[in-house]
Amino acid sequence: MELLWDGNNVKAGDSQSITALVKGCYGENKEGVILLEPEEALYLVDVRGAECRDAKGKKLSFNALASKFKEKKLLARYLTYKDWRDRGLFIRPEAEERGTYGRSVALEYKRGELVLDVPDFEGVFFADDLITTVDNAEVGGVLYNEYWLGQMGTYKAAHRGTISKFDVFETLLLLDSGKLELDVKRKDVFSEAKKRIEYFEDVYNVYWEWREAGYVVKTGFKFGTHFRIYFPGAKPGGGKGWTHSKHVLHVFPRKSSLIISEWARAIRVAHSVKKTFILAIPGKGKVRKGHVDFALYHRKGQGVETPKNGKPSFLMLSLSEDEYLSGEELAASLKTCAERELDLLVAIADRESSVTYYLIKRIGLPGSRYEYYEIEWMQP
Amino acid sequence: MELLWDGNNVKAGDSQSITALVKGCYGENKEGVILLEPEEALYLVDVRGAECRDAKGKKLSFNALASKFKEKKLLARYLTYKDWRDRGLFIRPEAEERGTYGRSVALEYKRGELVLDVPDFEGVFFADDLITTVDNAEVGGVLYNEYWLGQMGTYKAAHRGTISKFDVFETLLLLDSGKLELDVKRKDVFSEAKKRIEYFEDVYNVYWEWREAGYVVKTGFKFGTHFRIYFPGAKPGGGKGWTHSKHVLHVFPRKSSLIISEWARAIRVAHSVKKTFILAIPGKGKVRKGHVDFALYHRKGQGVETPKNGKPSFLMLSLSEDEYLSGEELAASLKTCAERELDLLVAIADRESSVTYYLIKRIGLPGSRYEYYEIEWMQP
Repeated sequence: MELLWDGNNVKAGDSQSITALVKGCYGENKEGVILLEPEEALYLVDVRGAECRDAKGKKLSFNALASKFKEKKLLARYLTYKDWRDRGLFIRPEAEERGTYGRSVALEYKRGELVLDVPDFEGVFFADDLITTVDNAEVGGVLYNEYWLGQMGTYKAAHRGTISKFDVFETLLLLDSGKLELDVKRKDVFSEAKKRIEYFEDVYNVYWEWREAGYVVKTGFKFGTHFRIYFPGAKPGGGKGWTHSKHVLHVFPRKSSLIISEWARAIRVAHSVKKTFILAIPGKGKVRKGHVDFALYHRKGQGVETPKNGKPSFLMLSLSEDEYLSGEELAASLKTCAERELDLLVAIADRESSVTYYLIKRIGLPGSRYEYYEIEWMQP
Repeated sequence: MELLWDGNNVKAGDSQSITALVKGCYGENKEGVILLEPEEALYLVDVRGAECRDAKGKKLSFNALASKFKEKKLLARYLTYKDWRDRGLFIRPEAEERGTYGRSVALEYKRGELVLDVPDFEGVFFADDLITTVDNAEVGGVLYNEYWLGQMGTYKAAHRGTISKFDVFETLLLLDSGKLELDVKRKDVFSEAKKRIEYFEDVYNVYWEWREAGYVVKTGFKFGTHFRIYFPGAKPGGGKGWTHSKHVLHVFPRKSSLIISEWARAIRVAHSVKKTFILAIPGKGKVRKGHVDFALYHRKGQGVETPKNGKPSFLMLSLSEDEYLSGEELAASLKTCAERELDLLVAIADRESSVTYYLIKRIGLPGSRYEYYEIEWMQP
């Protein structure tokens, strides 16, 4: 296959190359000439044995050609493009797929409610540990057994001891319910937590929203996330043995910026323990559209969908391991996806050019103010 | 059991209580009276049904007593103390165990060497992706197959494409070897990496130290760590199929401070994929002694070791999920352990009072300038 670098673009003009490119859904046909995107041209040179020459007939190596395109995150885009193509699947520039495709359906989560029926009680707050202890075993027992608030005795061994411990989220919720009388003021509890837990206000707002919707929300420490959650009505005993959570909940504040390797680590732990990872993006933020890189065609029955016979399944955000992503950027990319009614597929090229995929699907939680998404590791 | 709060300490004076306390290895015997540490007194009240009264005979509840001791991280100390006791094991204040115990033995790692035998070659550096591409397939092939430097084609599919990619650590190592000629200067590569990767200099120094010792050091992205490593002589093919790493390597710079939940998350991923987690603490730092909380007696044969018949096995550092720990602090605690010839057991109480243990053992890597430790999740 013969390609030409004209000083601005890579293109193909001979009929044999054009036929091959059209068949493979590469490039854009403009007045009898195929114009290629940088990633497409690099792929053809790297993998398909294409030869690219400049106007003087000089052959350009991969590096010589890539050097023409030293644009923003070229390699992250190229490596994720290559990975999708190597799987025998089709991929097009996102700018060519700006319709609406009806392929994103929100996952509905049911709503319950939280009505606390306990007498008033007292507690002592330990600022250094962000924990409240309550030595009223009767109230502590009801809160633990009926609402799964606090921890009697020891985790999974409520009989070991007579004291209940409440974490700082539970402490604030109980203060706000008017049931708990503490040795310190609410604002002091809040400010201690703010000192220690990053974006505490955002994290607490998410906690409150799920508790208010009747869910049980406990620490996700064992699973590397802010919280683990149980559906409304869950109790520690659950009737038969211990109740296991099936979902973890992690808060990604709009203003926080996370290196991709850390972002992925949180999802990996959840995946390794077979729990569904829910990402919360609290707050409203600016509602502008965000960046996406490619439109992805996926499988269909035994074959594959193509730009000729089908429509895209996802939009791809191409990232590399050492890149940063903020909650605001992700929220904006997700907004673009929502408008085109496609789910977002985050593709991360690591330092070894191996690509990991995370599929992000919208969650509908009735009455919620924030955005929630299920994220799952996917092998396309 | 009767305890007395004298305004400064909790103590026991009646013969029946003294007998029970001595038998259980609680407190310190001072002139016929047993003086109790706060954690010991709280445990006796919480779990063992002890009654504590003040000088006027008024009974003190758990919270009333705990309020007397609102000292630094009391609950983290109490909950980890309680967990160890609840396992039927003995635990004493660290101040009472300041001998040397000969129970910490460094794990020896062998040393190899790195001698690069390749001709000079050229590459192009992509600052935005922190990756160098090399389109000299011959040199790229030797570097990949013989030294496992860079990635030919695609991860686990070296034949897919003709281009090699080198991450920023490999790029610097190859620049320093004098073999690689790049389109940008070394200092520009370094400064781009510094902009993006936190404590890059520390991370690169650790990378360099293991590579120099002959180890293969590749990205640990899939395992949530900075690197994964292979012993000297490892090659991607390894003779039969793919070579799997057995160790991951994570850098904890002295100046970095990490919330415990993030620290634990990194170890959890490694554990879930059954890899040994190696923690690197680069640099020299101030060599002062650091904090530890308790001396721990462990099992012996079918029974348990006690302060009467044995010696401690570990020193415990008691932490809570929402606490911060710096590399410097951990290094200092480890120094204290080294002096007493005991391994460090990091005990983390989560918001639900469940305690997770991580055992930290010294590694001996001949010729290394930095400190390395194996960390393993442990159920005592």
